[in-house]
Amino acid sequence: MERRNVGILIFPGVEVLDFAGPYEVFSRTRTVAGMASRRDEASAPFRVVTVAPDPGVIAATGGLRIVPDCSYGDSPELDVLVVPGGFGTRPLLEDAATLGWIGDRAGRAELVTSVCTGALLLAKVGLLAGRRATTHHGSLAALGELDPTIDVRPGERVVDDGVISSAGVAAGMDMAFYVVEKLVGADVADETARYIEYPRP
Amino acid sequence: MERRNVGILIFPGVEVLDFAGPYEVFSRTRTVAGMASRRDEASAPFRVVTVAPDPGVIAATGGLRIVPDCSYGDSPELDVLVVPGGFGTRPLLEDAATLGWIGDRAGRAELVTSVCTGALLLAKVGLLAGRRATTHHGSLAALGELDPTIDVRPGERVVDDGVISSAGVAAGMDMAFYVVEKLVGADVADETARYIEYPRP
Repeated sequence: MERRNVGILIFPGVEVLDFAGPYEVFSRTRTVAGMASRRDEASAPFRVVTVAPDPGVIAATGGLRIVPDCSYGDSPELDVLVVPGGFGTRPLLEDAATLGWIGDRAGRAELVTSVCTGALLLAKVGLLAGRRATTHHGSLAALGELDPTIDVRPGERVVDDGVISSAGVAAGMDMAFYVVEKLVGADVADETARYIEYPRP
Repeated sequence: MERRNVGILIFPGVEVLDFAGPYEVFSRTRTVAGMASRRDEASAPFRVVTVAPDPGVIAATGGLRIVPDCSYGDSPELDVLVVPGGFGTRPLLEDAATLGWIGDRAGRAELVTSVCTGALLLAKVGLLAGRRATTHHGSLAALGELDPTIDVRPGERVVDDGVISSAGVAAGMDMAFYVVEKLVGADVADETARYIEYPRP
């Protein structure tokens, strides 16, 4: 079956649920319903990889330590790019390697998405110019200041205006289900939500 | 301030959201509201550690690689024990070191909790005998078979009968918020849920 590469950016200070929520949704999606299909990858429409600025362990918020699958230098082609947020986004706003990698991968990806303050990184690269977008409720003003052409949408959980952004932290799961629905269909998204017992709001 | 140790068990084949959901909730809880308090630990009522059977990298479902904070041999005293699920629980049902560690830590903890099929491990240790409990919807029968004295509760998301069990995967976040409410208060739980934009069902 066709299998898309989902690349989730991770970095020091990435918020845990920002990346782990979409990771769970994309990695547990199956086009064959039920529990048995989750035991292997045969009906998995997505292959999920974590991508970090450099090789080596990443400490997320709270101290959770993740070994990335790859770094900017050796990341595969990505069909879906996921840029999560967290306090760790702030130094990356001035990090040329990160901004360059996001711009490069976004230009070649089928879908570009953000969770929470990951939207600030997309804005800095210019990817949200003239578009509707959202971010964590505490960073809506910061998003508008980074690029005043963005139509910032408070109160919306997932905003799709060519680039798909989502509100804070847990909203990243809704963004991931929205993408599953868009690429694989509502039945598959709904069955996967039932499998992981997530009541989509 | 009083700070409780939350120990989250991780193991090969642990379901990502099973451990990452509670990790997010406990590690981002603050008794002082707002965004600024999340920048440090000053008002954090919980210290979260991941505990694995052995030192070394753990591959969760989907392949996410985690470096545990400690292993059975050097884990600190735990106030709250969290036992997540995933297909990786099945071999642990026959693993004396794991069952021994859970039994030992559960006996000394203030609260013992499970997410999803983590309940199977608690049942195997005998911790759910004669109690109401739940697990992932696909493993309700297996839970009752492991210990026929358990009053298995389909359709309940969080069950507190001395030991606190929760339904599948995403229900672990509800369990974590339930524990925050119980130990620190409803206002703190609600504010933390708003901070991470999680609509508690």
